[in-house]
Amino acid sequence: MSEQLSGLGPHHDGSPLHVSTQTPALGETVRVRLRVPSDAIAADGTPLGSLAWVGTRSNPNREPRFSEASLVSGGIETGGDGWQWWEAEVEVENPVHGYRWLLVGDDGRQHWLSQAGLSLGETRDRDDFKLVAHEPAPEWAATSVLYQVFPDRFARSEAADERPAPEWAFPAEWGDPQRLDPPYRSGQFYGGDLDGVREHLDHLESLGVNLLYLTPVFPARSNHRYDASTFDRVDELLGGDDALVRLVEAAHARGIRVIGDLTSNHSGDAHEWFRTAQADPSSVERSFYSFRDDGSYESWLGVPSLPKFDWSSTELRRRFIEGPDSVVAKYLREPFGLDGWRIDVANMTGRLGGVDLNAEVRQTIRRTMLEVNPDTILLGESTNDAASDFQGDAWHGAMTYTPFTRPLWSWLLEPGSPAGGGIGFALGRVPTITGRRFVDAHRHFVAEFPWRTRLSTMNALDTHDTPRFATNSREGVVPVAFGLAVTLPGIPVVWAGDEFGLIGEDGEASRTPMPWGTEGDPEVAPVLETYRALLRLRREQPVLATGGIRWLAAEGDAIAFVRESADASVLVFASRHAAAIEFAAGALAVGATGGAAGVADAAAALYGDVRLAASDGLVRLESDGPAFGAWLLPGVAAPSA
Amino acid sequence: MSEQLSGLGPHHDGSPLHVSTQTPALGETVRVRLRVPSDAIAADGTPLGSLAWVGTRSNPNREPRFSEASLVSGGIETGGDGWQWWEAEVEVENPVHGYRWLLVGDDGRQHWLSQAGLSLGETRDRDDFKLVAHEPAPEWAATSVLYQVFPDRFARSEAADERPAPEWAFPAEWGDPQRLDPPYRSGQFYGGDLDGVREHLDHLESLGVNLLYLTPVFPARSNHRYDASTFDRVDELLGGDDALVRLVEAAHARGIRVIGDLTSNHSGDAHEWFRTAQADPSSVERSFYSFRDDGSYESWLGVPSLPKFDWSSTELRRRFIEGPDSVVAKYLREPFGLDGWRIDVANMTGRLGGVDLNAEVRQTIRRTMLEVNPDTILLGESTNDAASDFQGDAWHGAMTYTPFTRPLWSWLLEPGSPAGGGIGFALGRVPTITGRRFVDAHRHFVAEFPWRTRLSTMNALDTHDTPRFATNSREGVVPVAFGLAVTLPGIPVVWAGDEFGLIGEDGEASRTPMPWGTEGDPEVAPVLETYRALLRLRREQPVLATGGIRWLAAEGDAIAFVRESADASVLVFASRHAAAIEFAAGALAVGATGGAAGVADAAAALYGDVRLAASDGLVRLESDGPAFGAWLLPGVAAPSA
Repeated sequence: MSEQLSGLGPHHDGSPLHVSTQTPALGETVRVRLRVPSDAIAADGTPLGSLAWVGTRSNPNREPRFSEASLVSGGIETGGDGWQWWEAEVEVENPVHGYRWLLVGDDGRQHWLSQAGLSLGETRDRDDFKLVAHEPAPEWAATSVLYQVFPDRFARSEAADERPAPEWAFPAEWGDPQRLDPPYRSGQFYGGDLDGVREHLDHLESLGVNLLYLTPVFPARSNHRYDASTFDRVDELLGGDDALVRLVEAAHARGIRVIGDLTSNHSGDAHEWFRTAQADPSSVERSFYSFRDDGSYESWLGVPSLPKFDWSSTELRRRFIEGPDSVVAKYLREPFGLDGWRIDVANMTGRLGGVDLNAEVRQTIRRTMLEVNPDTILLGESTNDAASDFQGDAWHGAMTYTPFTRPLWSWLLEPGSPAGGGIGFALGRVPTITGRRFVDAHRHFVAEFPWRTRLSTMNALDTHDTPRFATNSREGVVPVAFGLAVTLPGIPVVWAGDEFGLIGEDGEASRTPMPWGTEGDPEVAPVLETYRALLRLRREQPVLATGGIRWLAAEGDAIAFVRESADASVLVFASRHAAAIEFAAGALAVGATGGAAGVADAAAALYGDVRLAASDGLVRLESDGPAFGAWLLPGVAAPSA
Repeated sequence: MSEQLSGLGPHHDGSPLHVSTQTPALGETVRVRLRVPSDAIAADGTPLGSLAWVGTRSNPNREPRFSEASLVSGGIETGGDGWQWWEAEVEVENPVHGYRWLLVGDDGRQHWLSQAGLSLGETRDRDDFKLVAHEPAPEWAATSVLYQVFPDRFARSEAADERPAPEWAFPAEWGDPQRLDPPYRSGQFYGGDLDGVREHLDHLESLGVNLLYLTPVFPARSNHRYDASTFDRVDELLGGDDALVRLVEAAHARGIRVIGDLTSNHSGDAHEWFRTAQADPSSVERSFYSFRDDGSYESWLGVPSLPKFDWSSTELRRRFIEGPDSVVAKYLREPFGLDGWRIDVANMTGRLGGVDLNAEVRQTIRRTMLEVNPDTILLGESTNDAASDFQGDAWHGAMTYTPFTRPLWSWLLEPGSPAGGGIGFALGRVPTITGRRFVDAHRHFVAEFPWRTRLSTMNALDTHDTPRFATNSREGVVPVAFGLAVTLPGIPVVWAGDEFGLIGEDGEASRTPMPWGTEGDPEVAPVLETYRALLRLRREQPVLATGGIRWLAAEGDAIAFVRESADASVLVFASRHAAAIEFAAGALAVGATGGAAGVADAAAALYGDVRLAASDGLVRLESDGPAFGAWLLPGVAAPSA
């Protein structure tokens, strides 16, 4: 096992323990801190040894600048945990200001610490830690627990019974089986509506959810509504504008925020703009799309019902995303009062051939949101490597599957499991990996994110676009998976129905109508209780939202890490089978005097059936099967500034 | 040793063996090829095993797309070397179109091959192989051998004796010792001139050089002339415009191209534009710089004599870089006829605080060059991680120290050596690394470059800004270092004086006046002969300019790789001490039937005193001390398309 996972490496992350402000201004000088444990080891597993120089290397305007750190505390004298604290000053000279740590040993070795880990060789700019001077996400973003609702499949209010089905729809009763073959696939219509959602807010509240994400609510010609026919109003089939207003008000009354879903990449081909564009080549709407000379047009992955927007049109920007009269603004304002947006296909938006307007579009969306209501969140869908677009200039966090979802599946699904469409496994097969490779993949794909982006990125086991995790997961690992979703940095996501133990073979099958009334069934109740308990854990321990993270150990069947803040720390263990892992007690930084026994004494079990034992300077975590365990530990004794 | 260096991994690079065109157009479909050796091994060292699916994963408009490859040949039947060839089609949908290979084993494992190497986990977009549809560098770029001249220190013509020294200068005679203390540091004036350069073109020709790079030739107030006082004419102290015209004509007559050096980040504070800007706040020139309210201004790293340009000025763009009347254009046109530019401080250009106009500036420079003379090269100085700016939209190659220069020093300098300013080692110390870490660093920092950028990037042992390599290098390693400069992908660089064995402790001291007349001295002649022989090797073997590269082995004291094309291959060995390395004969792909003995029979020594032996299926390369060896091998038997 390399140093990076021993828990005895020098450590830094973007959390408040290590960075003096989470919201620096351009030109502000920020204090950053590095912690070095006693008996620290280097990237090659040898002792780090004594240090001749410690400091940061920034890259203002792309030219290196070094800042020497000073020793804030010798460790035991003030911190009591045997760790050295170093502090350096870094001026935020660019809106995304990268820095890394350099530790020079008395032996002349140069140790570089970046978000990619500790290295004896120079590291790349991409992997620098980053201070971001752009407007931050609202403070509540990182403390959110997100619940995802697909309106057609969540719940019907009584009013829904009165509404005739639209001509494109194949009406279904709530208990009917799903039909996954076209045209039923996107046409099967269960008639869930927004009042139905409102009537089940008690369920969300009982789960511990505080952020509701609704997939699109605009009129369309499909059950998923990603093919909007207008953005001017909420679909009457969902109850119309008034139902959205009622839902948001009721949710707010329970402390639950609500975000919508906008398709910035495309509209439906029945959209009023597209109809005008097609009918009248001289119309301004013609410029909203990319028509070819023969009258055909660009569309999302070649699907004709989803014509792609051409963002070089200033009128499109004005109507859709720019300024207080735009669609983006309208639903954040009264009477709607949405708390933000999730943007569909954010990765492809504004990109086609030699043209790339993506940065302009996302920055314009965010600028409009800041004008109308700065207390709003902006999440972007980018289900693969999202790093390049998610540097903090617009998207607060990513709906992505590379750092968490796919590695999680690879670690926790039955070997050889298929994966239906939507989750992005190559060839529809889930490769099997070890716990160590899960950790490596996570670190690999978050290494380019600023810290704040990590905190607002969605930790989803699955979504409305993917198969459900439970479909082929190993026996007993749902608490392990969701335990990781609530304890790793990021916003935990519950895709509606997961808490009922639903399964689904692909992104279509997973859109199951909610099985209301089964909450007390013997196979459902324990799942519900698992979700409730883990979300309680998340919300009762603020360190899980904003604390730092240090990896302690990772092996084939088990991993361990600790989230840290000045107030409290939480130790986490996850295993897919019976497993045991050990690490040096000093890696926990909870007091040098008590040694391993001191750790065992200090640790208060928060969740799970995992044994924590200490002897010979080692902490040992052991499970008898698939298990998720969490323990409360004292906060990190940071020297005062 | 990991698979990536065993020579028995699946292989792809951007060379003609593997990519059907080096200059694809946007929308063109390119055929790409993957080679898989028999007995291939995976990233974890286990056998790769049989393959169920092979293909590419592209990322058009940032959304993954897969393209299945077909088996072009079973190997022995057509290629004769036991390697499988797979071919896939990739459409170039964006100007920089990334792709990676996916190999799925019958055992379900997914092997990803990107520029970062082979991995059992998903790789990041940054490290994709890249097809680039931007205008390419001229064909001669990759076959260039660059010689760098600092005019004040190269040679004086007789005419120089007639010219009075300028008022800022401290005149020196050619044999005078250098003075490194201010104000002599940039004021000591030896009076080299362009006719002096012209009079020594026979020296360049005898070395085998075909590209001459002149540091700035515009009037200035320093010996380095990076503080231009005008761009309108060549410094009269260098012989003026006519001397440059004479030099370029004479160089062209010998088949030597000539490039100049422009400071796009700043001018001198004596520049006519800056003088006007300072004197008249209402002048248009005021907008060329970044003045603060108090009349102070932004400058390069705070040096007041180098005021920084503000590229938001359209008039600055018009005068300096945009269109046929600009400075950029003027010297590429008659009567000057320069063959391109090296751009100083390219990394910082156009960047300040929240503003980043770098892409606009570099793209405008290249657009102007294409208008005036497309057969020109554009190199950008970016001495650290250059990847983000060097994706092919403007700069053809980088003057950078991360992929080659610094790792080379770390491998080949005496342990504990100091490094004076300019080369960018943290704290002025050169950490010592193994050969394996040299290879890792090289691969790490070229992984984000498109292939064509690698071919035009400068392989410099040192430059006018750095100490000289020979100052503290280990005994006998100069041929090793320069051998790598001529055999790794990239443009070999001779910083004038290296071929005389000069030393210099920092970037100032290395600007030694050339010791003409010492060519026959016993300590100089062998160095000169080493440079001539290695440049002859480079120019006689075109595969060293444009061939692919596969790493075969790397250990503490020795490394080996092979450059490959359909016509010929060159095997390369480099060691810093007596050393031996072995690798499987099959890794060389020179014929399956003869085995290791076949390799030994086929290899024709091109350079160096290194033993090549074969037995038991292994090739063994062995040196008795620091050594550089190269062998000619047959070309790679690629199946026809």
